[in-house]
Amino acid sequence: MRFQELRAGRRFLTGSAVVTDGDIRAFAEVFDPQPIHLDFGAAAHGPFGRTIASGYHTLALSWRLWIDTGALGADALAGLGLDELRWVRPVFAGDRLSVEVEVLESRPSASHPGAGIVRLALSAHNQHGEVVLTYRTAALVRGSGG
Amino acid sequence: MRFQELRAGRRFLTGSAVVTDGDIRAFAEVFDPQPIHLDFGAAAHGPFGRTIASGYHTLALSWRLWIDTGALGADALAGLGLDELRWVRPVFAGDRLSVEVEVLESRPSASHPGAGIVRLALSAHNQHGEVVLTYRTAALVRGSGG
Repeated sequence: MRFQELRAGRRFLTGSAVVTDGDIRAFAEVFDPQPIHLDFGAAAHGPFGRTIASGYHTLALSWRLWIDTGALGADALAGLGLDELRWVRPVFAGDRLSVEVEVLESRPSASHPGAGIVRLALSAHNQHGEVVLTYRTAALVRGSGG
Repeated sequence: MRFQELRAGRRFLTGSAVVTDGDIRAFAEVFDPQPIHLDFGAAAHGPFGRTIASGYHTLALSWRLWIDTGALGADALAGLGLDELRWVRPVFAGDRLSVEVEVLESRPSASHPGAGIVRLALSAHNQHGEVVLTYRTAALVRGSGG
């Protein structure tokens, strides 16, 4: 979708995905090999009483759910940044996540003629309706004239 | 390392890792299946002229390099948040990344007696010494009395 269509105020609800214990382990082994993600014994003494998904994992999965809406399609040119990510609640094996996405701003880019800057707010929640993470991100997106 | 040892001003330099084309594809297929990461033809017409690693991938890899220093060890209790992530430059297949980490703040937690809040600034650079991403993050970390 070109940036002109991703108007401020538009909202999207993604599909959902279950986070399995295998997913948690596979991600953590590559990107976040801490006991709290991989070691049942150690995690039992941690604040959550069991292993939890890496926050980098739940972040990336939230982004995947957004990509799967097809709203960006082939029009994202580059990711610019990410702000105010808060891991509000832990994500456990078996949790099902889905994401609400709101367009905060969409405007022509000053430095990339024909393209625009789109700012999004994402909020992922689990099967209990509890928010697990929130963040904002900005991307450079093709314009309808591009 | 307990939060008391992760004193403000301490700096760490991580080891390095090469991002291969296979790594880029494997991550993007699961978490960020956009043409700019997966489609050589489409990416050739994008701003970088070729496929680039997902920003979520380079973020997670930067975190992995930090974890591999062993500085947190088994003492991280939970990730709290992440701020001001900027994807400053693209990461291409074959790039070698390493990360500088500075402790910005380390103080006792008000809500978790015995634990502390540690704030870190991470800055990843490539084999040319160019910064590719920067961000700040905060974690809850065990204390020496815990």
